Amino acid sequence: MLNELLAREKLAEFLKEDLGFGDLSTAYLPDVETTGSFIAKEDGIACGQEIPGMVYGLLGGDAVYDPCVKDGDFVKKGTVMGKAAGSVRTLLDGERVCLNMMQRMSGIATKTRKATDLLDDDSIKLCDTRKTTPGLRMFDKYAVMIGGGHNHRFDLSGAVMLKDNHIALAGGIRNCVENIRKHIGPLTPIEVEIETIDELKEAVAADVDVIMFDNLNAHLIHDFKRIVPPHIKVEASGGISLSTIAGFKGCGADFLSMGELTNEVKPLDISFLVRNAIKAEF
Amino acid sequence: MLNELLAREKLAEFLKEDLGFGDLSTAYLPDVETTGSFIAKEDGIACGQEIPGMVYGLLGGDAVYDPCVKDGDFVKKGTVMGKAAGSVRTLLDGERVCLNMMQRMSGIATKTRKATDLLDDDSIKLCDTRKTTPGLRMFDKYAVMIGGGHNHRFDLSGAVMLKDNHIALAGGIRNCVENIRKHIGPLTPIEVEIETIDELKEAVAADVDVIMFDNLNAHLIHDFKRIVPPHIKVEASGGISLSTIAGFKGCGADFLSMGELTNEVKPLDISFLVRNAIKAEF
Amino acid sequence: MLNELLAREKLAEFLKEDLGFGDLSTAYLPDVETTGSFIAKEDGIACGQEIPGMVYGLLGGDAVYDPCVKDGDFVKKGTVMGKAAGSVRTLLDGERVCLNMMQRMSGIATKTRKATDLLDDDSIKLCDTRKTTPGLRMFDKYAVMIGGGHNHRFDLSGAVMLKDNHIALAGGIRNCVENIRKHIGPLTPIEVEIETIDELKEAVAADVDVIMFDNLNAHLIHDFKRIVPPHIKVEASGGISLSTIAGFKGCGADFLSMGELTNEVKPLDISFLVRNAIKAEF
Amino acid sequence: MLNELLAREKLAEFLKEDLGFGDLSTAYLPDVETTGSFIAKEDGIACGQEIPGMVYGLLGGDAVYDPCVKDGDFVKKGTVMGKAAGSVRTLLDGERVCLNMMQRMSGIATKTRKATDLLDDDSIKLCDTRKTTPGLRMFDKYAVMIGGGHNHRFDLSGAVMLKDNHIALAGGIRNCVENIRKHIGPLTPIEVEIETIDELKEAVAADVDVIMFDNLNAHLIHDFKRIVPPHIKVEASGGISLSTIAGFKGCGADFLSMGELTNEVKPLDISFLVRNAIKAEF
Amino acid sequence: MLNELLAREKLAEFLKEDLGFGDLSTAYLPDVETTGSFIAKEDGIACGQEIPGMVYGLLGGDAVYDPCVKDGDFVKKGTVMGKAAGSVRTLLDGERVCLNMMQRMSGIATKTRKATDLLDDDSIKLCDTRKTTPGLRMFDKYAVMIGGGHNHRFDLSGAVMLKDNHIALAGGIRNCVENIRKHIGPLTPIEVEIETIDELKEAVAADVDVIMFDNLNAHLIHDFKRIVPPHIKVEASGGISLSTIAGFKGCGADFLSMGELTNEVKPLDISFLVRNAIKAEF
Amino acid sequence: MLNELLAREKLAEFLKEDLGFGDLSTAYLPDVETTGSFIAKEDGIACGQEIPGMVYGLLGGDAVYDPCVKDGDFVKKGTVMGKAAGSVRTLLDGERVCLNMMQRMSGIATKTRKATDLLDDDSIKLCDTRKTTPGLRMFDKYAVMIGGGHNHRFDLSGAVMLKDNHIALAGGIRNCVENIRKHIGPLTPIEVEIETIDELKEAVAADVDVIMFDNLNAHLIHDFKRIVPPHIKVEASGGISLSTIAGFKGCGADFLSMGELTNEVKPLDISFLVRNAIKAEF
Repeated sequence: MLNELLAREKLAEFLKEDLGFGDLSTAYLPDVETTGSFIAKEDGIACGQEIPGMVYGLLGGDAVYDPCVKDGDFVKKGTVMGKAAGSVRTLLDGERVCLNMMQRMSGIATKTRKATDLLDDDSIKLCDTRKTTPGLRMFDKYAVMIGGGHNHRFDLSGAVMLKDNHIALAGGIRNCVENIRKHIGPLTPIEVEIETIDELKEAVAADVDVIMFDNLNAHLIHDFKRIVPPHIKVEASGGISLSTIAGFKGCGADFLSMGELTNEVKPLDISFLVRNAIKAEF
Repeated sequence: MLNELLAREKLAEFLKEDLGFGDLSTAYLPDVETTGSFIAKEDGIACGQEIPGMVYGLLGGDAVYDPCVKDGDFVKKGTVMGKAAGSVRTLLDGERVCLNMMQRMSGIATKTRKATDLLDDDSIKLCDTRKTTPGLRMFDKYAVMIGGGHNHRFDLSGAVMLKDNHIALAGGIRNCVENIRKHIGPLTPIEVEIETIDELKEAVAADVDVIMFDNLNAHLIHDFKRIVPPHIKVEASGGISLSTIAGFKGCGADFLSMGELTNEVKPLDISFLVRNAIKAEF
Repeated sequence: MLNELLAREKLAEFLKEDLGFGDLSTAYLPDVETTGSFIAKEDGIACGQEIPGMVYGLLGGDAVYDPCVKDGDFVKKGTVMGKAAGSVRTLLDGERVCLNMMQRMSGIATKTRKATDLLDDDSIKLCDTRKTTPGLRMFDKYAVMIGGGHNHRFDLSGAVMLKDNHIALAGGIRNCVENIRKHIGPLTPIEVEIETIDELKEAVAADVDVIMFDNLNAHLIHDFKRIVPPHIKVEASGGISLSTIAGFKGCGADFLSMGELTNEVKPLDISFLVRNAIKAEF
Repeated sequence: MLNELLAREKLAEFLKEDLGFGDLSTAYLPDVETTGSFIAKEDGIACGQEIPGMVYGLLGGDAVYDPCVKDGDFVKKGTVMGKAAGSVRTLLDGERVCLNMMQRMSGIATKTRKATDLLDDDSIKLCDTRKTTPGLRMFDKYAVMIGGGHNHRFDLSGAVMLKDNHIALAGGIRNCVENIRKHIGPLTPIEVEIETIDELKEAVAADVDVIMFDNLNAHLIHDFKRIVPPHIKVEASGGISLSTIAGFKGCGADFLSMGELTNEVKPLDISFLVRNAIKAEF
Repeated sequence: MLNELLAREKLAEFLKEDLGFGDLSTAYLPDVETTGSFIAKEDGIACGQEIPGMVYGLLGGDAVYDPCVKDGDFVKKGTVMGKAAGSVRTLLDGERVCLNMMQRMSGIATKTRKATDLLDDDSIKLCDTRKTTPGLRMFDKYAVMIGGGHNHRFDLSGAVMLKDNHIALAGGIRNCVENIRKHIGPLTPIEVEIETIDELKEAVAADVDVIMFDNLNAHLIHDFKRIVPPHIKVEASGGISLSTIAGFKGCGADFLSMGELTNEVKPLDISFLVRNAIKAEF
Repeated sequence: MLNELLAREKLAEFLKEDLGFGDLSTAYLPDVETTGSFIAKEDGIACGQEIPGMVYGLLGGDAVYDPCVKDGDFVKKGTVMGKAAGSVRTLLDGERVCLNMMQRMSGIATKTRKATDLLDDDSIKLCDTRKTTPGLRMFDKYAVMIGGGHNHRFDLSGAVMLKDNHIALAGGIRNCVENIRKHIGPLTPIEVEIETIDELKEAVAADVDVIMFDNLNAHLIHDFKRIVPPHIKVEASGGISLSTIAGFKGCGADFLSMGELTNEVKPLDISFLVRNAIKAEF
């Protein structure tokens, strides 16, 4: 479901970063055909199963990857996530980029799943933010989705988001919204960030598409939400983390956003083992 | 100290990822000149102070950034790290990329500083690995260095690193090293990963440049090291984290490597505040 | 208002296409400083006034462009749209790309203005489509906006648009919308294309964000619209051209889309005249 | 006959422009294999039959395109121009870029054919100009050729073209030509633009390769041509359009150039129909 | 006279190739302002004087280059070709790329001058070929021109060149030329390679633009030339080198082409000396 | 052994440089299937046998290359180095880039073999330098290795090399080395250039990894080497060419570097012959 054209271009860049002038450690090995396995070293959600196939294709050999689990599957420690077969040089040259991507993507998916489990409220979508790692947004947002989260706007032309800075400069919510509405297209949603009940009333009066409740606790969200008409969506944001998210259950927001999903990534531990090199412990 | 040619090209890519077809939220604001501040929201090591200047240059306006601290300085919560001045559109269009980069780089520098403080042993260099986030290696490794760490090889042509896979395929350490030494240039160091005393002896006999002790504890490192001649460097690797690193003090290794420095990044919290938009709390 | 980073990159590509290995006709001219004027040869709406400045910057000389009218201004035949000054080589090397872009952008803006004038209904936004010329979407959509039109989605991730193909494959409007709504983020609008009253009812029942009335005349639009609740927007599309648009006045749609705005461009005739070369007729 | 390396690179760029972060409308459809047809909705000349195959290849699936007519064939309204088969996601993700390109290229070819038919004089080649849409020159010029036209120079290093600006700056035709001839290579033709009989005499005396008669009517062209020796080619240019071209029949020029062929494109209407989605009317 | 847009892009690529992740040798030097000189270590023709300025600009500092001689000037051993001033890091980071380019370009210019001196016949233009080093054609051809040579076609779309392969496949010169003439534009010259008098007659009959005499000696060239009408140019090619070129004086060809000018480059020895580092010998 | 991902990207660039808007000479030939041979026209070492296969792949046809000798094999004049089969257009469109690369790479390999034969001392590795042709370093260094030479550092981040400039600016060898050693990673070798015995002693005292003896003759190298401990490598550099290298036999250096290997390339003469076009002489 990753767009292959977009992903391949990124992966080519990543491989070039890692290869430099080529992998000296493998260049003089006997170039035998071999097999290898990607193995989860801890429990989590698999993500990035399309990566090895694309990496091997870019490296130009005929190595192939055969996934044993799908993106989104839960894997237990020790699970073989997939099997690679081909020239040992191709497998080793691509190893680090595959692992760096799969560990990161699986780490994001795993955290997202954890967060949605803690939230435990199907009426609230859990969203990412633009706090992605630069250059990796398409992978980060894909991993959030695989983990059961949803994607906030992809970039600065995907939606209008009016924060304190914009509003202050435009002279208040009403002016700011009216001016922008004149210019933007009818498919572009307008979201306004509010902190107080007065700001909320202004935003409702301006009939924006989404109102972001910034740094409000679940109780206040619930309270504020009562004056928001049903066709305006409510986003809660600010101060939402794995340790606080459970408290937002039932708060009434349509969606929460949580920067931590993508800007504080704990990679899922995954190893790559080449057959002849497998040690006793495995 | 970041190479400007290399960094600018990456930042242009990151800005394009974030801009899409342009920032709709700022496009229709009055384009006044304003100022803004980057403020640390928690204690840490500053890193990335060259980013805003390059970002503003790429966006094409005449906005400028005036850093108040240098890369590597310790900043306390509340410290103004630097001041931006220019068109409000330029400042806001570049805000997210600046923050994503500065938070990440400062986070890496902060963790590195923490690790070297815990290690508390000037005779051991703390090194990064190739477990960097794809596409960001030059920034990740720069941040490690700013935090007081050192850079392991930059890419696969920077050094030969013979791990279990390579050795198994080439038929043992001696064969593997001899074969590679015939081909590679005299400036390329050869490092061999060992786990047992027998492997260590083989590596010493092969007179490699560096021996990596894989997953050995400090006591064993100390022990093994006695049979390594002084001109061969010793790297300890595997299982080294913020919670274990203090135990490696005095182990005798020349350097430790720690993947966590770059693949498990906790960003340093930094905000960007535009003057007119500063709220009461500041 | 064109994003400079994005536009400069495109213009560099266009200049390289036109330069080949360099402009042989100017390479051996005396490289004197001169001035030149961009002059409208017919009435229309000016668009692209930022182009020459960026082109000259890319060519590396110190030539400058001083616009005499703003993007969106009406210009009469004979109007000097702007003045260039600098090395004659820079002015001539960049001439064709400047003219090709300015003529095209002004042509789109002019046609858009004509269409909104004919429509003569401020309650209906006139929108472009994705029928832009490949590689030029940012310029095409900018020109539509300058002409008083509005931008439909910028790309395939900007909004969900469910046409007959999608609906047929997913087994009807309800299934299609429900399935997609589970996956997409809360800021992504869902639009459904309908042709019959039954489809319309299904789309209303699915509570989508926008309903596109495909190939309906103004009378039917008016009729159909009565069963659409106010928070669902209505787009009319298909068969709308300069010759038919006046008939949509008062039809009640929120917006119309018209592919012709960008895929059938009549350039506005603009010349570039270098001072010494101006002939008697001027 | 389109160079595949060059065309693929452009098409990748165009697809990325249209995809953004990926096609949300198709991402969650059942990814069945299907077929689709490209159908001419009006009479014209087919052009761009290599596009769908390259687009599908770039998108990474195994969709294929089987053309039913060749580039240059006349197609009547309703003709199936070609059939696509493959994953419905690939077919729909690539649809817009395929159509935008094929419609545009067929539109150019159709207009070119119309113009050569009106000219009705095999002794005169009808040529394009550099008034192509930026970034699309290779496609625009290919379409002109498919329509029976010929390509003027591809870029600024393909030929020397001395217009009023160049001549005025160099102090007359003779000086300008002599100076340039000293520098340029022997395969680079020199063309000079003239408007008067005196200029023509100067150009003949300078023994240039081509003389462009600027804005002269057929009668004057015929007249002027008598003093041009046979080895110097004559180009007529300026004011030549579909409505005037018939008048140039028999004028004696070796070739005419007509900017309108590529800078005022009326796309040929072509639809793409996916099998399951085909409505009653087809 | 190098096109700055084109040259800068190439130089950025070359700098990235040489920098890798940055210059470790200069990164920790005190970053003082200094000056340096480019000094010819042997006699030759200067070429590439625009390179250092562009290189320093790309590196982002404020270093500047002040040329003491112009491209095309003869320099004696010991001549200071130009002076650089700026940050020592910028000067040293760019040193190798500057020298590699200037030495190569000056080497080509010097060999070209030598060849034209040996030829000693102003009626014959000495031309390069497409035997340039891949990626460097614009620099190679520029250097030939600076050395007093001329540029053959720049690329495969610049002219038609029919060699034995083409002619054999198309069934003889006449067929081949007639077929191509139908398709190509009127500004594209057609050149045919001949080896025998019969082929020459065929080529003359086909009225091509240029005839290449392949591997004929001066005497035969002179002989063959008598049956070529004056408006058809004659190129001599094959077996022309520094050691044989003098023999072609007066042969009557319009131009000679010599692959060796660019594919067998002896760099002109040039050093870069930083002020504080200048040793006694200077 | 060339990394295919890296090589393909370069070759695509080279093909685009040579193709321009496409090969006009082949575009209208009958596109028959044919075969062709790459034939050595002089004795030498083959290098670049992977190039034609990659070139044909990029051109998009199904042409294939079947090498008859391996990179590193000695070929005699007249040897068929490999056979190509496929569309004549693909074969001819790629011919020049294939030949330019193979001739150059084989030329470098041949010169390197000649130099190691002359040196005739297996205890001394012969190395290249960074005096490669910009943009071609990966190919140049590969060819040196194929010829039996070794690769010096690949780029400025591969090793620290302290020359007179660096040392003078840092205030002597000791200061310079100590300062840098504090910052760089443990795998980065430090090399210092010395000219005098005093400098040599300083370098030994600083315990650097490699000492470069600059411009010393074999006798002095031998002499100086006696005070260098065995774990410090010695490089001899400066004034080493094909005509002097034999004198360095037995000098005791660990390796020599010779800029001439890559910056003064005499291409190996190789032709490409298409079957139908083969003349009597073959």
